Amino acid sequence: MRGAVLHAPRDVRVEQRNDPAIIAPTDAVIRIAATCVCGSDLWDYRGINRVTEPTPMGHEYCGVVEEVGSEVTTITPGQFVIGSFFASDNSCPICRAGYQSSCVHREFVGAGGAQAQALRVPLADGTLVATPGIPDDDLIPSLLAASDVLGTGWFGAVAAEVGPGKTVAVVGDGAVGLLAVLAARQLGADRIIAMSRHESRQKLAQEFGATDIVTERGDEGVAKVRDLTDGLGAHSVVEAVGTQESMMQAIRSTRPGGHVGYVGVPHGVDLPGEELFYSHVHLHGGPAPVRRFLPEMVDAIWKREIDPGRVFDLTLPLDEAAEGYRAMDERRAVKALLLP
Amino acid sequence: MRGAVLHAPRDVRVEQRNDPAIIAPTDAVIRIAATCVCGSDLWDYRGINRVTEPTPMGHEYCGVVEEVGSEVTTITPGQFVIGSFFASDNSCPICRAGYQSSCVHREFVGAGGAQAQALRVPLADGTLVATPGIPDDDLIPSLLAASDVLGTGWFGAVAAEVGPGKTVAVVGDGAVGLLAVLAARQLGADRIIAMSRHESRQKLAQEFGATDIVTERGDEGVAKVRDLTDGLGAHSVVEAVGTQESMMQAIRSTRPGGHVGYVGVPHGVDLPGEELFYSHVHLHGGPAPVRRFLPEMVDAIWKREIDPGRVFDLTLPLDEAAEGYRAMDERRAVKALLLP
Repeated sequence: MRGAVLHAPRDVRVEQRNDPAIIAPTDAVIRIAATCVCGSDLWDYRGINRVTEPTPMGHEYCGVVEEVGSEVTTITPGQFVIGSFFASDNSCPICRAGYQSSCVHREFVGAGGAQAQALRVPLADGTLVATPGIPDDDLIPSLLAASDVLGTGWFGAVAAEVGPGKTVAVVGDGAVGLLAVLAARQLGADRIIAMSRHESRQKLAQEFGATDIVTERGDEGVAKVRDLTDGLGAHSVVEAVGTQESMMQAIRSTRPGGHVGYVGVPHGVDLPGEELFYSHVHLHGGPAPVRRFLPEMVDAIWKREIDPGRVFDLTLPLDEAAEGYRAMDERRAVKALLLP
Repeated sequence: MRGAVLHAPRDVRVEQRNDPAIIAPTDAVIRIAATCVCGSDLWDYRGINRVTEPTPMGHEYCGVVEEVGSEVTTITPGQFVIGSFFASDNSCPICRAGYQSSCVHREFVGAGGAQAQALRVPLADGTLVATPGIPDDDLIPSLLAASDVLGTGWFGAVAAEVGPGKTVAVVGDGAVGLLAVLAARQLGADRIIAMSRHESRQKLAQEFGATDIVTERGDEGVAKVRDLTDGLGAHSVVEAVGTQESMMQAIRSTRPGGHVGYVGVPHGVDLPGEELFYSHVHLHGGPAPVRRFLPEMVDAIWKREIDPGRVFDLTLPLDEAAEGYRAMDERRAVKALLLP
């Protein structure tokens, strides 16, 4: 099969790779319908995460089940499925508490490289969620989004305890931030402040449900959010970047007793204990337990209540994956969809 | 009146001070029935917090109202009252959300120095809670404990989402940690692990409701808590120290999806963003909004359901406050009660 491999910083190649096969009896192999490039792939691409050997890339996927292992009981060949970047048994105490991305048996699905024509998914019964039938083509981008970027924005909103009566601010206008806006609207937020300096992203944020746009960053962004909230700060703030500046902006934009949901993978972030203490915020986040939200997200997509696939503003054949990385690296694209 | 003043590290003197008076029409002046030395006073006493001028000490108090300002409507002279270290209006949006210690009008009551014969309390209506009548003498230590140390342990337990079916670990065996154990029992925890190396404190923890004692610290303490929880970590962990080691011990003792409630005032604490992210814990804490819990704490004390005053293992006349500081500094006493 064809699959994307990172050889060195900024050197992504789509090349011939071995077809995936069932290894454990709980595995499935799926034929990828669509995959994409994640903002977190850029950490590797840019050389910020060190890559020491050729590495298959990608961890977002949806597609049709080709084959299942002998112990797989609920997932069957021919089903259209979506799964998360972490495989989970969905039955351990951690999964039952809703933290499938910390499952005691978790495996990183992306190890196999989802930017490819096919993918082995471990723990298929616990990991994959089947759609009610084979989706229309126009639903596929949205179903793919549920695999990570929507699930991550959704978790950010849930971790920030978004809900009716609340004012929400979202730090970060990448795909996750934009979909956190969408999730906040779905979860019933009263008011949604998107923090963005880019006109096209502001527009999409507004279409997803943002009621206010703040273009300032850092201390000025914080001051603006406070201005919009009677000087108190937002009830809920989603952090969807992962830098020191964005984390502090999120914490300082939150009122005492409010909630920060942080889903940007932190790079070089250190939180000052004393400031955090006196901020009185709740802090929660981490790798999104996408599996927890998949059934409700897939249902809303299937019913065409939400259209998260609109974050894909570039669609390329898989063989042109390198251009997808370049476009996102240069911020010419929010998110690149790849068709195998 | 007589009152304790810190002149320099380790130099606490009880001396003649001006009697407090009503300044704002929302003030009350109370005659102190009992006051005490707080673990956080030791940061000043030890010179870790710099003290640049003679500073009246103490922020824990209960006593009888002597006088109220013209705008005070619910608190009346003759009532026995308890209040928190932060005065609060108890009516702003932050107070209504239960974060009175971040009230938009908050004032630090301790500025007046509660280790004294009398004290001015601002925002009396919002700050003070009256008991049903004048308490028996033996209830006074417990009512005094509610002013801070019980309220702080209680908030730690609430912030850690303690409740039925949960296993709770408490890091820190000072008065706050011990009373977090008591609060965890009151809040219905199934199992309470007290982390302590001191036999007398272990004994009190067990009397307050601890079901398990872990004597190890740091990584070994974490491993022990995991051993006791099927390798997963506790559902809820209360951090009641405020050092880097204790914060990391608390975070690492918590299972993914679990809750850390931190109430030890942080000194030199920096939280590594990446570890926190992958830990999947909830983090919440800060200066305890004691006012939120005062009615239920006072009620439980009045009905003699709880006896938090047992953390006072040294009682001295106010004039001997310096000996109270010394005894706590040298860990000869858990907590020193002072009688004006």
